Amino acid sequence: MPDFSIGVDLGGTNLRIAAVSADGRMLDKIALSTRIDLGCDQVVSDMCDAIFRLTAQYRGGGSFLGAGIGAPGIIDFDAGVVRKSANLPGWTGYPVRAELERRLNARVFLDNDAHVAGLGEKWLGAGRDVDNMAMITLGTGIGGCLVLNGKAFPGMSGMSGEFGHITIEPEGIPCGCGNRGCAERYASASAIARMAREAIESGEAPTLAKAAASGAEFTPKAVYDLAMQGDAAAQRIFRSFGRALGMMLADIVNVLNLDMYVLGGGVAAGWDAFAPAMFEELRSRSVVYAATAPADPLAKKEGASEGKKTIITRAILGGDAGLFGAARLPAL
Amino acid sequence: MPDFSIGVDLGGTNLRIAAVSADGRMLDKIALSTRIDLGCDQVVSDMCDAIFRLTAQYRGGGSFLGAGIGAPGIIDFDAGVVRKSANLPGWTGYPVRAELERRLNARVFLDNDAHVAGLGEKWLGAGRDVDNMAMITLGTGIGGCLVLNGKAFPGMSGMSGEFGHITIEPEGIPCGCGNRGCAERYASASAIARMAREAIESGEAPTLAKAAASGAEFTPKAVYDLAMQGDAAAQRIFRSFGRALGMMLADIVNVLNLDMYVLGGGVAAGWDAFAPAMFEELRSRSVVYAATAPADPLAKKEGASEGKKTIITRAILGGDAGLFGAARLPAL
Repeated sequence: MPDFSIGVDLGGTNLRIAAVSADGRMLDKIALSTRIDLGCDQVVSDMCDAIFRLTAQYRGGGSFLGAGIGAPGIIDFDAGVVRKSANLPGWTGYPVRAELERRLNARVFLDNDAHVAGLGEKWLGAGRDVDNMAMITLGTGIGGCLVLNGKAFPGMSGMSGEFGHITIEPEGIPCGCGNRGCAERYASASAIARMAREAIESGEAPTLAKAAASGAEFTPKAVYDLAMQGDAAAQRIFRSFGRALGMMLADIVNVLNLDMYVLGGGVAAGWDAFAPAMFEELRSRSVVYAATAPADPLAKKEGASEGKKTIITRAILGGDAGLFGAARLPAL
Repeated sequence: MPDFSIGVDLGGTNLRIAAVSADGRMLDKIALSTRIDLGCDQVVSDMCDAIFRLTAQYRGGGSFLGAGIGAPGIIDFDAGVVRKSANLPGWTGYPVRAELERRLNARVFLDNDAHVAGLGEKWLGAGRDVDNMAMITLGTGIGGCLVLNGKAFPGMSGMSGEFGHITIEPEGIPCGCGNRGCAERYASASAIARMAREAIESGEAPTLAKAAASGAEFTPKAVYDLAMQGDAAAQRIFRSFGRALGMMLADIVNVLNLDMYVLGGGVAAGWDAFAPAMFEELRSRSVVYAATAPADPLAKKEGASEGKKTIITRAILGGDAGLFGAARLPAL
């Protein structure tokens, strides 16, 4: 048995703990609820109980290298604390890392959830063969991660990769960050729900209106299914989503000229519905992308045999990217 | 005498060649015209004659390490050729580096002019104490350079740092790159000239109109002088310039979270007229900047004693940044 580490996905609703071998195999996974209303100490106790169960089981084989935790919001990596998180109310300033290190008597790392998802895709996923990549996580909002010269690039204070707050509409929709027209107001799960509501109110989306009347929720999946069935209103929503994403990507590509940009998170599953509009917008807006685009960016093996081409592709580890990436932190 | 290298600033109009010691002193400088109409071979001959004069003079002391050349446009660093340059017509595909290496019998590097200016500021200028910085060069257009973990970050194909083509106005002014609303259409020397013309045509800029009638050219300097003398129309132009720059910087800061952003190039001399609007826009649009801004970003020693703060500051090497940076290439 090889050495192993623990990866934790600490969400506002779900708490997942995994044992991952140093050579990248998922050994075991425990899924719990985050009992956020019982306070930080209780959540940390739940986390430690699960970690002890896993380490007891796998310690016989190899060494336990430590634990990595991915959490939503602004994380102070150096201090090991949550600085600001809408999904973890009451956690600001709580010494997550120090408390876990004390209880586990092991090395612990705390990082942003989008950062660890990117590390996972770099280690074992879409980016495993490239040294310079960005991961864009499309969820309720938009998260991001930069991997440069083969290593995570957290920035001066761990806040790099805030792609979702790139301005794509100077006088656009107000964002919680204080800006207007941020990309995540136009290309996220919440943006799809907003566009669906607006389409119904405009009277131009009969199928969506019928679905709404029957009490269906506007998950991105529901709108995606309608788009793939040919519903014009649902298709317009995903085209708009794709254009917004293309505008955001154009800025990132012009700034960084990376080898690869990986789209992950739940909403990336809508790829077939948004990718054509995304590539069209990206090509028309980014001089760097236009100069380095593969002949057919939608082809499965994009540009693989064309030399230095900019690859925009889907993540392949799904919801486990963050568990793998978090488990990678103590193994690095 | 220490070792030395040659730095070349190959512009569409001016050709400057400098001998720089390995410890960063400017030993000598030769200024010529770029005889672009006589063809690449003649320009390369002029360049080599000047280099031979300098190397003959300084070779007695230390070793000649080689030459670095900064050129405008899209440069293929690996191949040592100009890929696309509006200012160097006819140079596309000409083997600049190979030809110079043959004639000089020395190591030669060819890079983008904005990249070498950034390397100069990192080596000896505003960025000498930081490992992660971007340089933004404000000239006719906007150039850029990324220095990450202490080293130039050229990107996959040497095209990183195209900050001037970040979209700040989705339906804005068409740009030569194919996009609309690029930052350099609103925050460059050519943008100032356009805004001055528009202000005169609107009838709301009597002083500018008078200056124009007397045949004065609308250099950024002339408009800047009027702004500092209190002319309202000229002040509006620089405020607009500052807001555009702030929007562009907000995107860069959100993506990278670097320690320092250095503004250079001729138009950076207008700092006093545009910086207040730039900082106001930047703070309102970038969540990362707002979280890391020094208390008084306009103070001379911005944030130096405040720990990890985002510093936006002026370049200090002026027009020689590119010569120093180019000379640094063979010495690295």
